[in-house]
Amino acid sequence: MPSIKDVAEKAGVSKSTVSLVINNTGYVSKETKEKVEAAIKELNYIPSKLAQNFSRQHSGIIAIVVPDIMHPFFSTYIKYAEKELSAKGYMSMVCSVVGREENEKKYIDMLNRKIVDGIIMAGHSLDIEEYKKSTRPIVSIDRFLCDEIPVVHSNHKQAAQLACDCLIKAGCKNIVQFVGSGKVKIESNIFNFYCEEILKQNGIEVNSINVGYNTFTIEEYEKSAHCLFEKYPNVDGIIGVDLLILSCLKIANKKGISVPKDLKLIAFDGTYVTRANNEITSVVQPIEDIAKHSAKLIVDKIQGREIKENNVVLDVLLQKGETVF
Amino acid sequence: MPSIKDVAEKAGVSKSTVSLVINNTGYVSKETKEKVEAAIKELNYIPSKLAQNFSRQHSGIIAIVVPDIMHPFFSTYIKYAEKELSAKGYMSMVCSVVGREENEKKYIDMLNRKIVDGIIMAGHSLDIEEYKKSTRPIVSIDRFLCDEIPVVHSNHKQAAQLACDCLIKAGCKNIVQFVGSGKVKIESNIFNFYCEEILKQNGIEVNSINVGYNTFTIEEYEKSAHCLFEKYPNVDGIIGVDLLILSCLKIANKKGISVPKDLKLIAFDGTYVTRANNEITSVVQPIEDIAKHSAKLIVDKIQGREIKENNVVLDVLLQKGETVF
Repeated sequence: MPSIKDVAEKAGVSKSTVSLVINNTGYVSKETKEKVEAAIKELNYIPSKLAQNFSRQHSGIIAIVVPDIMHPFFSTYIKYAEKELSAKGYMSMVCSVVGREENEKKYIDMLNRKIVDGIIMAGHSLDIEEYKKSTRPIVSIDRFLCDEIPVVHSNHKQAAQLACDCLIKAGCKNIVQFVGSGKVKIESNIFNFYCEEILKQNGIEVNSINVGYNTFTIEEYEKSAHCLFEKYPNVDGIIGVDLLILSCLKIANKKGISVPKDLKLIAFDGTYVTRANNEITSVVQPIEDIAKHSAKLIVDKIQGREIKENNVVLDVLLQKGETVF
Repeated sequence: MPSIKDVAEKAGVSKSTVSLVINNTGYVSKETKEKVEAAIKELNYIPSKLAQNFSRQHSGIIAIVVPDIMHPFFSTYIKYAEKELSAKGYMSMVCSVVGREENEKKYIDMLNRKIVDGIIMAGHSLDIEEYKKSTRPIVSIDRFLCDEIPVVHSNHKQAAQLACDCLIKAGCKNIVQFVGSGKVKIESNIFNFYCEEILKQNGIEVNSINVGYNTFTIEEYEKSAHCLFEKYPNVDGIIGVDLLILSCLKIANKKGISVPKDLKLIAFDGTYVTRANNEITSVVQPIEDIAKHSAKLIVDKIQGREIKENNVVLDVLLQKGETVF
């Protein structure tokens, strides 16, 4: 197994220079950096930190806690977060919490016991008090917990504006939006709040379908979609997360409702499933950017760097599709 | 933080009985088991093993190495594997290797250094020799590595038979299948091999489109699908993985080709994306079962139990849909 000394010798630099390159913690010239990286590659050196840390105060592991790993938003998030964390020398542990909410608390305990160095938390069912008890590094996705815990999320006001503008311009008068009912208030509730506000300001009636607490499977989504068409047969515009909108399109096609002529659909998240088959008009969350920012924040917290921005808000994009004119 | 002693006192049993329940390693009556589990829940006890192991020879961590975490087959697999491993007291570390193939070797090194207790390996680009070098627990998904490494996979011969029967009965004469081109031979290549064999036996011409090495994104899939329609404009039946078939349906709709009348499509994997919108006729891999079997095997290997079946082959199912009559 090659050591940091072997890398230093191969690259013709000191061990501390190799360490700077690996940990990306100080100034190293581009030329030196490339030499060190070439030596690391050639020797197939694994930063020994990963091994040593186990007997020290760091594990080199960051936990990513999400509601459901399979869900396209979270699987995309984990893909990019793992890549970013790996580039920074950290390994990614994952955990789903839907139906196993006790895991959210378990991971905070693991953080306190230093089994993991930090948590990126997107599984939100605990009271804020549970988080406040921990002084160790946590970064939150989509939910403000307290001033000490940075949060990364999309600009949900902008997202609501884009989604509503689309449906208003297309002439919708009877809009229904799917609403989640988490135990706690998160940013995507704020999206729904703004949608309602914007549509009301434009004199448009807006109804809601509650999809139930932490619902994430196709089968559950399809039930909610059926419920919408039963309760609001005159609906002419629907706002909801990707898989809900795909379910609505499926049902509309079966019922012979013409999309987008008689029914407009707009998805929020805009993950790859909105481009896989029918092209769904979507407000796209910048998942790769959310991953990059949250990975940087958690590593900065772990390594004791100052956090300048505790509330990172990222712009969304409109993806034109075939479900709104 | 509650200890095993607190749990034992609460449940009115000995510490070793609590240990037996937690580790699932000996006979405990149903009644006792329930008492212990209730005490664990009430006290919110975390098996201290997770913490203690770090200073011992075990980390309590199993790595799941896949080509692409976001891909619906692998995100579904990780969801269920994490759940199974968690129930057995292990944490799941994840890693994508497409475009970062060096990680496959890195994780084997981490296994040898006891940073992880075992690896479930589904990222297959290394030579078998690299695996043979390790004597530590590995379980493979979809690729036979050597006698010492158990492998779990679907019955690809049965899968090929179901897919081909479907298209033969529907009267297809010009079938094209998408073929992966991994660096190594894996079970899904065997699926393609059998499809070709079965179709030839039935006097049906079958062509192949190579989707390139480790291709997993919507954009790449769509390119391959376009390529198919250009190269084989008279195609009347297509076999491919879920997202490729969704791309083909999208293109067929744009070209005005009537599915299933003039073109039949059958997907292999049958993940949730084949039920999200259009219902895709699919051969469904039992992903949850693959996860259960592979989780059991890796934990058995780690805990030194005898492995009775080194090659676990699981039945697939036909999911009827709207893309074949």
